[in-house]
Amino acid sequence: MFVLGVDPGLTTTGFGAVRKTVGSIEVAAAGVIRTDPGLPTPGRLADLYGDFVGLIEDVRPEGVAVERVFVNKNRLTATRVGQASGVIMLAAALAGIEVFEYTPSAVKAVVTGDGSASKTQIQQMVARRLGLSAPPAPADMADALAVAMCHIQSMGTRVGRLTAAQGARR
Amino acid sequence: MFVLGVDPGLTTTGFGAVRKTVGSIEVAAAGVIRTDPGLPTPGRLADLYGDFVGLIEDVRPEGVAVERVFVNKNRLTATRVGQASGVIMLAAALAGIEVFEYTPSAVKAVVTGDGSASKTQIQQMVARRLGLSAPPAPADMADALAVAMCHIQSMGTRVGRLTAAQGARR
Repeated sequence: MFVLGVDPGLTTTGFGAVRKTVGSIEVAAAGVIRTDPGLPTPGRLADLYGDFVGLIEDVRPEGVAVERVFVNKNRLTATRVGQASGVIMLAAALAGIEVFEYTPSAVKAVVTGDGSASKTQIQQMVARRLGLSAPPAPADMADALAVAMCHIQSMGTRVGRLTAAQGARR
Repeated sequence: MFVLGVDPGLTTTGFGAVRKTVGSIEVAAAGVIRTDPGLPTPGRLADLYGDFVGLIEDVRPEGVAVERVFVNKNRLTATRVGQASGVIMLAAALAGIEVFEYTPSAVKAVVTGDGSASKTQIQQMVARRLGLSAPPAPADMADALAVAMCHIQSMGTRVGRLTAAQGARR
């Protein structure tokens, strides 16, 4: 399974591609896409779209897992996050890649076992599961890796067994 | 001035193209784009994007005026509206068309003079200003025409004079 996790945002979109095979799980690519806050929104959406199209052409994930917009911030931020997630889903759909959405609380619950886990707890769990030497940063990239992990862990029993094996190695 | 007003939505996106010349104002095209509620969201966004790209190729507006997402509904609806507005802005940006955003209260205030006007009041004013024999329907198309009117009325003194002339003809 090879999934690209995405934490969408107009200013900063985090991404993290995670490849899981039998007995191994690794980060294939991770980072952030930023757009120029000095540009009008439509131009920023076009830049984000272009960069994300380039990313999926490079990474070629089998699926894209997107963190669902969290509208509990201020109105304008929520609008911009929604717009960013729209162009990301569009890019994936036009490339023929299946898209999955996960709410922030689902990501927390699946990755840490606690739907109200803190950002720090999620980052520590992601680092441990992916064998990273330090919690991933910046935060948007960490969130994207968490969404990718959430998707992988949600996809059935083989993932469950892998998780158990990782637990035993700790 | 030739502007395409848009009221974005994943299920139904209203549009209305209004052309204003010295002494005349007319609806050049108006209607709705619908997507299949039975499809997954990314596919619906791709369908909306494709239809909207076709629309702006046909209509060739000088500008696109979009009603800003109103997040005071339920969370998931707000997310979907944001995503729809994102792909619409993207399509306009990639076509090199300037995009303008107006909040619902700005549309109400500019079109009717009352920021808390009812839907019915807006539709009646749009019908009167555009010389329509009946209030425009469906509601999403009416809202799109109102956004287009808002943009035209916001664009300066020549529009102000036209509005005054229309008022005198009543």
